[in-house]
Amino acid sequence: MSHSTLNITYKTRTRLLNDICYKGVLMLFGKTWTLVGRARSCVVTPLARLFVSSNMAKSKFEYVRNFETDDTCLKNCYIVVRLDGRNFHRFTEQHKFTKPNDNRALGLMSRSAHSVMEELEDIVIAYGQSDEFSFVFKRTSTWFKRRASKLMTHVASQFSSSYVFYWKEFFGDQPLLYPPSFDGRVVLYPTNRNLKDYLSWRQADCHVNNLYNTVFWTLVQKGGLTTAQAEDRLKGTLAADKNEILFSEFEINYNKESALHRKGTTLIWEKRDETVTKRMKRPNEEEKEVSVTRSRKRVQAHHCDIIGEQFWEEHTDILEDDGC
Amino acid sequence: MSHSTLNITYKTRTRLLNDICYKGVLMLFGKTWTLVGRARSCVVTPLARLFVSSNMAKSKFEYVRNFETDDTCLKNCYIVVRLDGRNFHRFTEQHKFTKPNDNRALGLMSRSAHSVMEELEDIVIAYGQSDEFSFVFKRTSTWFKRRASKLMTHVASQFSSSYVFYWKEFFGDQPLLYPPSFDGRVVLYPTNRNLKDYLSWRQADCHVNNLYNTVFWTLVQKGGLTTAQAEDRLKGTLAADKNEILFSEFEINYNKESALHRKGTTLIWEKRDETVTKRMKRPNEEEKEVSVTRSRKRVQAHHCDIIGEQFWEEHTDILEDDGC
Amino acid sequence: MSHSTLNITYKTRTRLLNDICYKGVLMLFGKTWTLVGRARSCVVTPLARLFVSSNMAKSKFEYVRNFETDDTCLKNCYIVVRLDGRNFHRFTEQHKFTKPNDNRALGLMSRSAHSVMEELEDIVIAYGQSDEFSFVFKRTSTWFKRRASKLMTHVASQFSSSYVFYWKEFFGDQPLLYPPSFDGRVVLYPTNRNLKDYLSWRQADCHVNNLYNTVFWTLVQKGGLTTAQAEDRLKGTLAADKNEILFSEFEINYNKESALHRKGTTLIWEKRDETVTKRMKRPNEEEKEVSVTRSRKRVQAHHCDIIGEQFWEEHTDILEDDGC
Amino acid sequence: MSHSTLNITYKTRTRLLNDICYKGVLMLFGKTWTLVGRARSCVVTPLARLFVSSNMAKSKFEYVRNFETDDTCLKNCYIVVRLDGRNFHRFTEQHKFTKPNDNRALGLMSRSAHSVMEELEDIVIAYGQSDEFSFVFKRTSTWFKRRASKLMTHVASQFSSSYVFYWKEFFGDQPLLYPPSFDGRVVLYPTNRNLKDYLSWRQADCHVNNLYNTVFWTLVQKGGLTTAQAEDRLKGTLAADKNEILFSEFEINYNKESALHRKGTTLIWEKRDETVTKRMKRPNEEEKEVSVTRSRKRVQAHHCDIIGEQFWEEHTDILEDDGC
Repeated sequence: MSHSTLNITYKTRTRLLNDICYKGVLMLFGKTWTLVGRARSCVVTPLARLFVSSNMAKSKFEYVRNFETDDTCLKNCYIVVRLDGRNFHRFTEQHKFTKPNDNRALGLMSRSAHSVMEELEDIVIAYGQSDEFSFVFKRTSTWFKRRASKLMTHVASQFSSSYVFYWKEFFGDQPLLYPPSFDGRVVLYPTNRNLKDYLSWRQADCHVNNLYNTVFWTLVQKGGLTTAQAEDRLKGTLAADKNEILFSEFEINYNKESALHRKGTTLIWEKRDETVTKRMKRPNEEEKEVSVTRSRKRVQAHHCDIIGEQFWEEHTDILEDDGC
Repeated sequence: MSHSTLNITYKTRTRLLNDICYKGVLMLFGKTWTLVGRARSCVVTPLARLFVSSNMAKSKFEYVRNFETDDTCLKNCYIVVRLDGRNFHRFTEQHKFTKPNDNRALGLMSRSAHSVMEELEDIVIAYGQSDEFSFVFKRTSTWFKRRASKLMTHVASQFSSSYVFYWKEFFGDQPLLYPPSFDGRVVLYPTNRNLKDYLSWRQADCHVNNLYNTVFWTLVQKGGLTTAQAEDRLKGTLAADKNEILFSEFEINYNKESALHRKGTTLIWEKRDETVTKRMKRPNEEEKEVSVTRSRKRVQAHHCDIIGEQFWEEHTDILEDDGC
Repeated sequence: MSHSTLNITYKTRTRLLNDICYKGVLMLFGKTWTLVGRARSCVVTPLARLFVSSNMAKSKFEYVRNFETDDTCLKNCYIVVRLDGRNFHRFTEQHKFTKPNDNRALGLMSRSAHSVMEELEDIVIAYGQSDEFSFVFKRTSTWFKRRASKLMTHVASQFSSSYVFYWKEFFGDQPLLYPPSFDGRVVLYPTNRNLKDYLSWRQADCHVNNLYNTVFWTLVQKGGLTTAQAEDRLKGTLAADKNEILFSEFEINYNKESALHRKGTTLIWEKRDETVTKRMKRPNEEEKEVSVTRSRKRVQAHHCDIIGEQFWEEHTDILEDDGC
Repeated sequence: MSHSTLNITYKTRTRLLNDICYKGVLMLFGKTWTLVGRARSCVVTPLARLFVSSNMAKSKFEYVRNFETDDTCLKNCYIVVRLDGRNFHRFTEQHKFTKPNDNRALGLMSRSAHSVMEELEDIVIAYGQSDEFSFVFKRTSTWFKRRASKLMTHVASQFSSSYVFYWKEFFGDQPLLYPPSFDGRVVLYPTNRNLKDYLSWRQADCHVNNLYNTVFWTLVQKGGLTTAQAEDRLKGTLAADKNEILFSEFEINYNKESALHRKGTTLIWEKRDETVTKRMKRPNEEEKEVSVTRSRKRVQAHHCDIIGEQFWEEHTDILEDDGC
């Protein structure tokens, strides 16, 4: 049983202190009032309730803080936070998203990811497709002391509030019926190769899904098949077969379809020269308009291949050296 | 170097397969086309690019999945997810929250927490005050397979999207200026005593802060002090002193202040009888109106003390037995 | 690039300092010699090598410390460390252990566990059978700051060195052919019920294995079956059938077999009165022999049932209250 | 409450099954005997005790397995296990180790590390000095499924049992007084640079300590100072000053001291040609002696600098490519 010692003057003791019901007994040992901690079946004296300060009660419980465990991410690894829409099948149905891709929805995803990048330092690249988005923190980041829980909840929270906040910008008068949610996870990658392979994995996933969905919905929307018939038709087909169906039956060259749909969205920081006109007045001169050009970092969207090396050779500042 | 074997017919081989730029070499061994994996300085033959299926490229990268580590929460412990507003000092300033408490903001926090409880199974109690909210999953929960990352990001996401979604209900025409965010964490508590002490800690924190803020803003708003003077006046004062200032100088009995402000908000599930009127028609009878009463579980808000035992004795179904 | 500033007097600079080959450049900026950190292709000047102190070189690398992650065990849970013999099938063969149980080997396991309990504070109970031993740290233990890695490696190390150290005491002149090893793991249990169930699981495992092994080796050693025949004979039999074989064919009542084999070994701390004779001399008296009785805590072995409640009711001081 | 169904024939039911005291009730539902799980205050019927099979009892407790958490090491990182002697100050005193270095003790450490490398696959390099040893698993290792607990306990166990086992080889008739112990930890390093810096850190530590100890014990053993005086003399001195004391006062050139002491011990795998003489007999020939040379991998000790690049350039097979 631990004792918490409380030195209080007589004057203080005579005041009605507070309303915290504290399970303990306050006892006078010599000149010191001592609070004897919560016993299992102890009596709560009215006197005790009078004298226990609320700060003291709070410190009594503060030990629970130490149950929190450390989840610091391993140093010198890329930290990837990936978000996935929860129950988005239902969400897309209820909000009548166009098939196979809804540009309003993709734009909103991208806008929300943009908002995340501007709020959280150290995200060097983000990649999104369908209802998912991945955010990559630089390997030397010390943001949130690299605490995994803080990083992923902050990303999930900022993304979700932005999704609702910017809904109107993309869906206009069509109302958002209920607040959607996303779940997240953290994955660490030790080398540049591993990180690029992660992003390649997500872009290959985008490709596989989009090719399937493009053929599927073409068969339904233009070919007049039911969804069950379209599913049946595509069973066991390879990418080549799907390209063939599109080309020979519908005169669609898949490679000329929208890059946004085929490649997803890659967000990176880019320096842009921005020119603004300012009115300035120098001593002994008349006020006049001056063009001022500044270089500013801005989030820029790309819809290109990130599996090959070309993208990385053109943007060498995204990844840090492995230092080997 | 691993080989991925790809059996393709000649017909398939002659088609233009896809647009995935794959760094590898496709070689014909006997009758089998074999893809020899990415070498550091390998030549990408045009032939290879033709034949690699996108599914295959995807599977090539899928190894990155195994970098995800398991963060399952220890069984038979309460899982607490706590959210805290990020930069809410600035947020409250910019949205002109009333001081010391803004009932619209507290209502919106509570509404958002309500939305979380309805979306996520197994939350048995939630407690909130100021810009924070804690959610307690029952100790036997298997929601999300007890994966900490999924639990906390889902809570953070649902709460944040709800906060923006329900803003209008509480702030009316006052616009939300930007999407706010919350960060979260997961803490485990092995026993009922530890969990109750956690909730007591948060309610004691509510009390300490609210008493301070109440006196501080009374000194400023009614006493005419500057914020600096008020801060100075309160330096070193105990709870007793603060009560005394409120009572003797402003005739305010702190214990009669709003329970919402003094005690925060506790959300629990409660069974309520709901009576609805239905029109029914039995065979050989005329259709008539019938009152049907059903027992339904609903999230209910309380603003009472949860530090003492009374609350827990009145709601014995919240916590499970420690099983000792 | 980070700069480490090094202030050295001219006298110091002229001495040959040390032999650490440091990849860096020492430059004179004003009156301060500055070490410019390792660049990828930097030149190591002979001058630089002269001036860099070894302490400085060490501090240069010390950042690698921060790659160690925290593995503190959740507070208020029992910490169980279980050791299992590695390749003990081969070890028992090569050291000709008697079948189905070798009392020398079981004695050595127990002696080594005893040694662990005396070296590590806070182990309240240990249970062993066959080539495994489990050690339970009390739930409030702060030994090694509850760091899982330290706890399990210390247990594994102390157990293994003891096993070799005490080998002679149990195996006499039979030599130990090579150093054996054990692997370990840490598991946490939040409640007394969970912990008791863990120990019950291990004792039930002891029972199941020992019953099988007893019948198997009786069939081989007394029944004249080959090991293949014995295995065949026991396929699909229940505990009842095995008891029946022992009783009807060999007149063995399994329940009267050695408790050490059927129940394994449970080690706990027990207070014992110890009486020693001391020679004492008081002032004005002649020296004489005096019996002194002191109560001392000693590790005591039991071979009894620990699945039922009786054991726990007789030793109420082993487990702490769940505090519910 | 979960029910475990147990189908048993009447014949089986009438046998005395086993001695496991099972807290539960066995009930006949139709033709199926069903065990109703442990209730808090349930009655243990004698009938129940008769019928419950031990396997069943075991499975009842097996749920505790799921409390074990996954501690898999992040893929593609080097896994370092470092061992440190526990209470080795006392151990060296009691075993009268020579100061500042005891070659018998260093040899025993090295012999034990050698034994670890031969038992555990995938250790590519080990470095030791004083009473510590670090073991590096290759970055692609899948040994023990990369489970940290298994890796570090196995290393700690094998090292400790070897230390006792080989004691006699190094200390001859001087007895080992008690079993020593080592604690361990696991640290991950994502890049070759980080790993080399880790090893450099340990070797720099060796240098700093050995230089200090060499001067300290020279002052005491040759200079006639007390240990307190020697400590005082060295307070605040730099490496240069220590070299100066050795050289000017004792004519000792530190750089010519034993490399084992200055550089510690590095163990790596090296291919050596081994020639053995075998007696062979070919058809139609007489038996004769033949020299057979084979290339075999053996653990080899080095006492050289591993901070500079030379060592790594000479042994390019130790580290794998970062793959960037």
